[in-house]
Amino acid sequence: MNRVCELFGTRYPVVQGGMVWCSGWRLASAVSNAGGLGLLGAGSMTAEVLREHVRRCRQATDRPFGVNLPLANRETGELARVIVEEGVRIVFTSAGSPRTWTAFFREKGVIVAHVASSSRFVAKCEEAGVDAVVVEGFEAGGHNGREETTTMCLVPAARRVTTLPLLAAGGIGTGRGMLAAMALGAEGVQVGTRFALTRESSAHENFKRLCLSLEEGDTRLLLKKLAPTRLVKGDFMTAVEEAEARGASADELRELLGRGRSRKGIFEGDLSAGELEIGQVASLFRREQDAAGVMEEIINEYERARTEISR
Amino acid sequence: MNRVCELFGTRYPVVQGGMVWCSGWRLASAVSNAGGLGLLGAGSMTAEVLREHVRRCRQATDRPFGVNLPLANRETGELARVIVEEGVRIVFTSAGSPRTWTAFFREKGVIVAHVASSSRFVAKCEEAGVDAVVVEGFEAGGHNGREETTTMCLVPAARRVTTLPLLAAGGIGTGRGMLAAMALGAEGVQVGTRFALTRESSAHENFKRLCLSLEEGDTRLLLKKLAPTRLVKGDFMTAVEEAEARGASADELRELLGRGRSRKGIFEGDLSAGELEIGQVASLFRREQDAAGVMEEIINEYERARTEISR
Repeated sequence: MNRVCELFGTRYPVVQGGMVWCSGWRLASAVSNAGGLGLLGAGSMTAEVLREHVRRCRQATDRPFGVNLPLANRETGELARVIVEEGVRIVFTSAGSPRTWTAFFREKGVIVAHVASSSRFVAKCEEAGVDAVVVEGFEAGGHNGREETTTMCLVPAARRVTTLPLLAAGGIGTGRGMLAAMALGAEGVQVGTRFALTRESSAHENFKRLCLSLEEGDTRLLLKKLAPTRLVKGDFMTAVEEAEARGASADELRELLGRGRSRKGIFEGDLSAGELEIGQVASLFRREQDAAGVMEEIINEYERARTEISR
Repeated sequence: MNRVCELFGTRYPVVQGGMVWCSGWRLASAVSNAGGLGLLGAGSMTAEVLREHVRRCRQATDRPFGVNLPLANRETGELARVIVEEGVRIVFTSAGSPRTWTAFFREKGVIVAHVASSSRFVAKCEEAGVDAVVVEGFEAGGHNGREETTTMCLVPAARRVTTLPLLAAGGIGTGRGMLAAMALGAEGVQVGTRFALTRESSAHENFKRLCLSLEEGDTRLLLKKLAPTRLVKGDFMTAVEEAEARGASADELRELLGRGRSRKGIFEGDLSAGELEIGQVASLFRREQDAAGVMEEIINEYERARTEISR
C-alpha cells in the first residue's frame, strides 16, 4: 500500500494545498470526499474562524481532513490550540521551523507533515520528528523557497536524505504531473493551484477567472528581499517589478506591499490593488471544475499515463 | 519505436547538450558511442575549429552525432557553411528564431531540432518546419528563457501545441529524471549538466570539481536585464547579484560582464574572474565519470524506475 495513503487514511495519495483565502471547509471536505486529503488553510483564519471551519468540515465529510498551519503567523499558538481542542488529526505545518510545533502536536496524537523547499530542511524535518515531508519547488504559487530549486531537482534531492513518506508540490496539477513526481521518488503529491481554481474554493470568481486565462510566463517570483512570493501579472506585480528593477530596499518593498493585500486580491477579487498568488501550472487549466471532477481527472490520467509508460 | 531514436538514428532517446566550452569531439563521440546523440557545441568555436571537431568526431565514432548552433552568434553563417560542407546530418539550433536557418538546413537534408523555452516558441518552431523540438526549463544551466517556466510545467504545455518529436531539457540528469520527462509527455531528453561534468568534457578540471561539490541553491538565474543566465556561486556571481540588488542597468551589467568570461571560467578554470554556468541538477552529482558510465547509469535507472512505477 502507498505510505501516504496509509498515513493519512485516504484512498489516493493526493493532498490539497492549504492555500490562504481558498481553502475553507467547502474545498477541504470536497477533496476529502473525493478520496484525497483536504486541508483547511488556517493561514488566513483567526482561531474562531478556524474552529467554525473544522466543525463544518466534519459535518460535510466523514473522511480524514487536516489543517495547514503557517508557523510564521502571529496567531499560531491560538490556532494550534483550536486544532487540538477540535480533535483535528492531521496538520501540515509550513513557513517556519519544524522544531517549534512538531513535538506539541505529536504528543497530542496529531500527525504532522512539514513543507520544505530544500533537502537541508527536509533533514531538519526528520530530526524534528515529523511523520511526512512535503517538498515544494520554485514553480509553486505564493510563498516560495529562497534557493529556487524546481520540483524536478528538489524531489530526488529530498529523496536522498529522508526515508519518511515524501510528497511533491509545485507544478503538479495533472495525472501526468503526479506520475512525474512519483518517478522522481515522491510517494504522493500536494496540489494547490488546480484546487484553488475549483468551484469549492473560496477564492473570488474574478481571481479564478483571471488565473484560468493565464499564459506561461504570467506569474513571476518576486519580493525576494522580503519573502520570495510567486505573483500573478497585473498592476501590483508591475509595481513590484518596477520597484525591484530600480533596486528598492526591503523596507520600500514592505511599504509597497502594505497589509491585507492577498485578502483583497484573492478573496475580494480586486485584481488591480490586490496581491494575486498562483502557481506556474495554472496556465494548463482553462475551466472551473468541481473538486471531485479534478480528482477524477488526475487519477484517471495518472493511471492511463502509468499504463502507457510501462509498455 | 521511439520517435526520437528513429529521427536521429540512436539507440537511446538521450541527447547530450551542446554546451559551450564543454562539448568538443571527445564528449560528442563518447556520447554517440554510448548510444545517445552527441553534439558539438559550436557556440564556443570558430568555423575552422568546428571543422576540425567535426572531422575528429567522425574519426572517433561511426554513430550519428550533431552540432549545436546558437543563432545569436556573429559567426552563425560561417558555422552553418561548415556544417553543410562537412556533411553533418543533425543540427540543434538555439538562442534565436527558428525561421532564420531551418529552411537552409532542411534543403541540404540536415535534420533540425530547435530549443525553445515556451510553448509559444514551440508553435513557431513547428511553423518554421523543424523536425523536432527541445523545451528547456528554468532549472537548466547557462542561457535561459525569460518566462522562467520550469520543466515540470513546460513539457506538458509544449506537448499540447505540437505533434513533433519533443525532447525535455533542464533538471534532467538521471534515469528517474528521464522517466519524469517521459511521464510529462516528452519522447526524449537532452542532458547538459551531467555530461558537462564527465571526463570527456573539455571544461576545466577546476570547474568540474566545483560543480561536483555544489549544494542546492548554489546556482542562480541572474542577468535578467541582459539575457537570463544561470550562474554558479562565486565571486562573479556575487558581483552580479550585488549590482542587480542595487538596480544596475543593462549597460552597467554589460560592462560588468565584459567579454570572454565564460571561456575564462569554464574552459580556463578561473573560478574567481570567470563566468561559471551549470544547471540546478548539478547538486545531485559528486563524481567525475566517463560519458559511457553516465549513459549506462541513466538507462539502467530509467528501466528500473519504469518497472517499479508500473507495478
